[in-house]
Order: sequence, then structure tokens, then C-alpha cells
Amino acid sequence: MKEVVDYLKSNQDRFLEELADFIKIPSISAHVENRKDMVKTAKFVEKQLRAAGLKNVKQYPTKGNPVVYGEWMGAKGAPTVLVYGHYDVQPVEPLEKWKTEPFTMTIKGGKMFARGTADDKGQAFIHFKVIEAYLKTYKKLPVNVKVIIEGEEEIGSPNLVEFIKKHRALLKCDTILISDTNMLGKTKPSITYGLRGLTYLEVTVTSLSGDQHSGTYGGGVANPAQVLAELLVGCKDPKTSKIKIPGFYEDVVPLSRKERAELAKIPHDDMMYAKGIGAVNTFGEKGYSTIERTGARPTFEINGIWSGHTGAGVKTVLPATAHAKVSMRLVANQDPDKIAKLFKDHIKSITPDTVKVDVKLYENNGYAALTPLDADGMKAASVAIKKVYKKEPFFTREGGSIPVVADFQHLLGVEAILLGFGLPDDNLHAPNEKMDISQFKNGLITTAHFLEEYAKIKK
Amino acid sequence: MKEVVDYLKSNQDRFLEELADFIKIPSISAHVENRKDMVKTAKFVEKQLRAAGLKNVKQYPTKGNPVVYGEWMGAKGAPTVLVYGHYDVQPVEPLEKWKTEPFTMTIKGGKMFARGTADDKGQAFIHFKVIEAYLKTYKKLPVNVKVIIEGEEEIGSPNLVEFIKKHRALLKCDTILISDTNMLGKTKPSITYGLRGLTYLEVTVTSLSGDQHSGTYGGGVANPAQVLAELLVGCKDPKTSKIKIPGFYEDVVPLSRKERAELAKIPHDDMMYAKGIGAVNTFGEKGYSTIERTGARPTFEINGIWSGHTGAGVKTVLPATAHAKVSMRLVANQDPDKIAKLFKDHIKSITPDTVKVDVKLYENNGYAALTPLDADGMKAASVAIKKVYKKEPFFTREGGSIPVVADFQHLLGVEAILLGFGLPDDNLHAPNEKMDISQFKNGLITTAHFLEEYAKIKK
Repeated sequence: MKEVVDYLKSNQDRFLEELADFIKIPSISAHVENRKDMVKTAKFVEKQLRAAGLKNVKQYPTKGNPVVYGEWMGAKGAPTVLVYGHYDVQPVEPLEKWKTEPFTMTIKGGKMFARGTADDKGQAFIHFKVIEAYLKTYKKLPVNVKVIIEGEEEIGSPNLVEFIKKHRALLKCDTILISDTNMLGKTKPSITYGLRGLTYLEVTVTSLSGDQHSGTYGGGVANPAQVLAELLVGCKDPKTSKIKIPGFYEDVVPLSRKERAELAKIPHDDMMYAKGIGAVNTFGEKGYSTIERTGARPTFEINGIWSGHTGAGVKTVLPATAHAKVSMRLVANQDPDKIAKLFKDHIKSITPDTVKVDVKLYENNGYAALTPLDADGMKAASVAIKKVYKKEPFFTREGGSIPVVADFQHLLGVEAILLGFGLPDDNLHAPNEKMDISQFKNGLITTAHFLEEYAKIKK
Repeated sequence: MKEVVDYLKSNQDRFLEELADFIKIPSISAHVENRKDMVKTAKFVEKQLRAAGLKNVKQYPTKGNPVVYGEWMGAKGAPTVLVYGHYDVQPVEPLEKWKTEPFTMTIKGGKMFARGTADDKGQAFIHFKVIEAYLKTYKKLPVNVKVIIEGEEEIGSPNLVEFIKKHRALLKCDTILISDTNMLGKTKPSITYGLRGLTYLEVTVTSLSGDQHSGTYGGGVANPAQVLAELLVGCKDPKTSKIKIPGFYEDVVPLSRKERAELAKIPHDDMMYAKGIGAVNTFGEKGYSTIERTGARPTFEINGIWSGHTGAGVKTVLPATAHAKVSMRLVANQDPDKIAKLFKDHIKSITPDTVKVDVKLYENNGYAALTPLDADGMKAASVAIKKVYKKEPFFTREGGSIPVVADFQHLLGVEAILLGFGLPDDNLHAPNEKMDISQFKNGLITTAHFLEEYAKIKK
């Protein structure tokens, strides 16, 4: 192990140069005009995997951008770790808010600034280099590894599920390792063990065939915006913030005493949290802490609402229709389709006979992901973190959704270890994205330890 | 009287030609580019009043378009009728929906098509010609008359209140006669005896200093759109449609038994009414008919609501703010400013401590107008209608607001008689505005009778 760590340390300047070349290609998956760059980036990843010493390196075409694959299966009897990452990045607008060139990696104050440094080129790159370090020094890895790096994560991985289904045998493994998340802080190492799922719907209430004069018809027919307000209030208790959709909590895996104890260790101050986002107060489901509410409990949120006159000044219109986009963040083991149906049924059951209501389900839905705290991969990750950070990690649950993580778990039947090295101020999806060089360095060494520890545990 | 009626009948072709000249000038008060046309139209009105035989005809400049005034005060001991009308018109867009030229009066199927035929050039013109008929035949009128025709009604009469206040002595009268409303139908003559008032406000709920990710923060802080929905539901009972603002109904003049009996005579079918506007159902305040709800009872309506993502597709945003435009139609004797204050106080009292709320009052507010059914002018109008239409008139209350009517009542202390000859399908403010020639003719003779009858009653 010493040789691997030495290799990782002594080659860091070169790593950063190579990472800058990776970053330089503007692989924005959302933009058609960057199609050529996607091809170029996939080629770059292919070269990196070959250079690291992986075998059977190849690109798998999809309906969109190719998936790049490589493997090293020389550790007979040892477990197999599937490493997942993505080479595509988010758009960079608004450009005027960037202090450096978005696709030129600029090092300043121990941080690398550029789109993709944290999400996810920089973090995927950690895996390339750890594999390289093992294969260059010991000519072997402590575990078998399979690496897949996709190019469509930022547009919702539309072709990955089909890829996984088609290549189940190829992707067979004992655990999945993903470095695409944050830690609480440089001195607060943490491992994400849960992600929320999502179901997203749109409700349309129609009262009239066209807008009318609120003087002439006001008071004679239902106001669709008023009815929509009633329906939304019928979904969540204003006092307790409990979701009132019958059956909504039925499949929720409750928080264990151990989990609540772990989550309670996370440094958090409600007042600071509220102040940080300009909130008057925290607010949420009765009986749970803010950490639990935002990570481990399902929610019901209005993401958008509109009806009638929304411009300047006065328009005395009685709107014909009213619309709301609503989403529910889900936790294990809630099924997004089942929840969508419960919501639809509930809305229909509380809709008065004075209006028509329509509920449309969007397709970007996904399951929550949850890895038991005592899973082998979690144990290995904990030991690895302790070796590098000299501290026990915190265990966190993220409120956002990465549907592909749950898809992996469901389709391959194994657990995902979310060992990410980002920091909360990395500006993912925003101007001035950065990654701390110290986190990149610690990430390399922690990941090297993880592979060794995982092999030990599984022996 | 016979001579007056004969004059009105035998000169009708010339009247229509002159009206076409009046219509031809595009006096759109909302458009700066029509300023010259406003001047031209005021001049046209001035000429008409002079030709009719009125005295002291002159234009009074205002900050906007001039008010044209004329009088005939030769009926010693007789009452004085103040005639009000407006020479400005609404814009004509969308032009492609007009079947004839908007400013060329086109006669087809007994109807005059053009902007302003019904609202209000055509109806104001009736008064010019009735006065002319009296003064050309008898050299006198049965009452004293004062005529004011303004040029800013369609933009909310911003300078009229100041004009009235400044010229109280000039405008002193016993009643006001306004022909700017509809009848129920050609064979269903009616007199409008009430108009609703209005107060219009905007509510803003703020939860955060900026939009956030609904995954990261969802469940941890209040959703402003959800709170706004709660506040709106807190203003109106979903079942009874009663407004829940404390004190809201306090000053309402209740419907008398006589009024309810009169309103019940109006031909109305709830099913047909709902079908006509594509409504599933009628709905409104418990204990009142649709006619009463839309004309004689105050309402609370959401005119607009918006928050978060209102575009296409999915955006998992936790909005920072939510907005609603709401208005309340008021009836006599509700004070729009008092109602605005009651609303503000109520909203503040039911706002939870998780958000900030702001309530803004718009300035286009106005009092309701209500003329007693037994007022002298109402009696005179009823007799006049019966003479021409051979039927008792229905008595109606309009749901919309014409603040200037209430302003006249308050500032001059007299009642307004809304003797309008429009029809419900006249397309006011819309493409293909028209006025029925039969209504124009009946309007002339009815108005002539009104003046005579009013003089008799007041003797």
C-alpha cells in the first residue's frame, strides 16, 4: 500500500495537468452544439482507462452519448467493485458570473476552478488514477474492478437503464462505488448512505372554457385558482406538515434508532441553516429534526403555480384554468409510480364537482437509494476515511435524487457506496464550480484504501 | 311630445350618417399615438352640442383629454338632469378578428358594426339628438340639462374626480342620466340599478432569499406557494363560499325583499348560464341565486397567482416567493379602503411565523353604486320604457364596476339612472362591437320620454 500512496503523491502534478486536459473539453450533454465534444471526451476517457492499465476498454454506443467501459479482473477469488462516474457536465450560463474561464482549469488558493472539477470529471478522475497507481506499482489491484463512465448524467441518464439491462452479465459485481457526492467539510468527512427518490406531477384545474370578466361572472362560478389552493392545502397539514395523501407513508422504511443517532451527530444549527438561505425559520414535518426532514423523510413541495394575470398592474380576470407543478421527494421503499397514483386518486377524491381536474405525471421519476450502515462497502469506506482523515466519518443522507443509483441497486441487486469528495461550497451546476485540491488528494488515497479494505472484509 | 318623436323618427338617416362621422375618429384613449384624434373627437362633440342647441358649450382641459360641457337651463322651476357619457373608445386589437373595418360604421342585418357604436359614442349620441329634437321642435326641454362628455373613461377616468370636485357648482343637478350599460334583451327591457365596487390587492409570500433546490432544502423550510394557498383558503370557505375576513360583511346593505323579488323575475337558467361559459357548474355564496351572487353580493376572487417554475417540463425548484393578485367586488355600503385594511389585517393574522408576507393595494378601487328602486329617476325611466317597449322593465344589478358612477353619487349627492340601450352580445371591448339600430331608435324615444316623465314626477 505504501508504494501506491507514494505513487499517488509523487504524480500529483501530472494528474492535475491531465485533469486540466479532461476539463478543457466542453462536454455539455444538454447542448446539441457540443455533440463533437462528447465524442472527444469519450475518447479521452477511453485513453485514460487504457493508460491506467484496464483491459477490454471500449466504448458502448447508446442512442445518445457512448458509455466508456474498462475492467481488470485479475484478482481471483476477490470481490468485484463496479466504479461509476460521468464525463458530461452542466451548461455554464450565466457566463458573466464566472470569475475564470469555465473550461480552463484555474488553480487559486488551493482550489481548482472550472466546470466539471467536482461534478464529475475531477471525482471520476480519482478512480482512473487510483487504478493506475495499483497497476503501475503492484501490477495488480486488491479487488476486481469494472469501470463505466457515462456521458448523459446531467440530462437524467436517459439511456443508462437500457444499457444496464442489456449488459447485466458484463456489469455483475459485489458493490458499486460512486464518487459524485459531497462531504460535510474538509475536516468533517462523511459518507452518503441515502438519496431521496422523486415523483413530479402537474395538476390542472379547469373551471371555464375561457377567461372571463371577474365582475360579470365573479361569484357565479368556481375560481380555478381558489380550488387549486384548496387541493394543495388538502395535501399537506399546515400545522404538522404531514402529507395527507392516504397511504403515502405506507411503504416508508422508518429511521432506525442507530440512524437517528448517527444523523444527530452531524454538526447542525437550525438558526445558522435558516440564516444561510435567508429563511425566517425552519419548518417541516413534526417529530423530526431538519437533518432528518431534508434527508430521510419524504416531502410534498409546490415547484410552480400559475393562473390568470401574472403581469404588472390590474387585470380583473376570472381565470379559466389554474396549474401547479408539484413533486414529492421519496425515501426507501416508496415506489414513485405508486405514490403518483395515490396522489392522483387523492386529488380526484377531494376535487369539488364545480371544476374539472387533470393530473399529469412527468417521466423524470426515480426510486430512493439506501445503503445499510453495516454493509461491507460502508465498513470499508469508514476505515479508509479514518486512515486518511484521522476521524470517524459522519453518515449522511442527501435530500436530492440521483435516480441512476437506485437503478443500479435494483437492476444489479447490489449496494452503492457513495464515497464523494466534493464540498458543500463547490458550486455544482452554478458559476465558479471548483474542487479543493486537498479533497482531490485525500480522495485518491482514501479510494486506494477503500479498495484494499473492501478486499479484506470480503475475504 | 308627438313632434319630438316625429322629429326623432324622420331624422334617423341623418343621425346615422352623423354617428358614422363620430365613430370614424379613432379616439383610443389608451394609445399615445391617438392624441390628435382625441382633440378632433372633443371638437366633434363640442359641435354636436352646439348644433343641438345647448348653451355655454365649451371644452374644459384636464391633465389628459378635455371634458366637453354644454347646458340648457331654460326650464325654470323644473329639475336638472346631468347627462354623462364618454367619447373615448377601447383599442381594437386583435385586428384580424374584425369582420369589418373597426372605425368604418358598417350596417348589416339591422346592426351598426364599429368600435364605439355601443360603448359609448352611439349611446352618448342618443342624448345629443334627443336634446336637438326638443330644442328644434318646442324650442325648449321639459327639464334643465347639463351634459358632460369625457375622453378618459376607458382608462379609468383618472382626471374626472378632480374635475367634478372643482366644478361642483357647475354640475349641480337633481339626478344623473348615463347611457353606458346593457339591457337584458331587445324584448327584455331593463334598468341597471346597481354596480359593484372593487378593491384589488397583491399578496407576496417570501420564504427564502433566493430559489433553492427542492431536494436539498425541501422539507426543511416553508414552501411559500403552499403558505399562499393556505392564506387564500383562509379567505373563503370552500363549501359555502362565504368570505372569512372578519368584518367583511359588516357594512353590506342587505337585499330587500322587494329587490329579491325583482331580481327573481329576471329570466335566468343556471344550466344555460354555465353552458354558455363552459363551466361544469354554477358555484357561489350559499343562500343566494346566481343573479344575486354576481350582481348584489360581494365576492373574493383570485385574479392571478404565480410562483416558482411555470414553464415547460420539470424544474425541481423550491421557490423563494409566491404571489397572488386578488380582488373583492363590493356592494353598497362597503368602503374599498376599509375592506382592503380588513383583508391586510386578516392575512397578517393567519400568516405563520415561517414566512414574511406583504400586501400591496392597487389604486383602481371604487365604491359600489346603488340607486333605490323607488327613486324619482327610476320611476321616470320605468314609465318611459313601458311607453316604448310596451313592457315593465326588469331591474338588474351589474357585477362589474364603473367607479365614476359612485364618484358622481358621492361628490354631487344625487342618484344615477343607468338607462342603457346596449345588448349583452354587443362585444364591448372586443372585436366586432356593434349596436342594434332598433335599440338606438328605441333609445332615442325612451330618453325623450324619460325627460318628460322626470319633469312630471318632480313637479
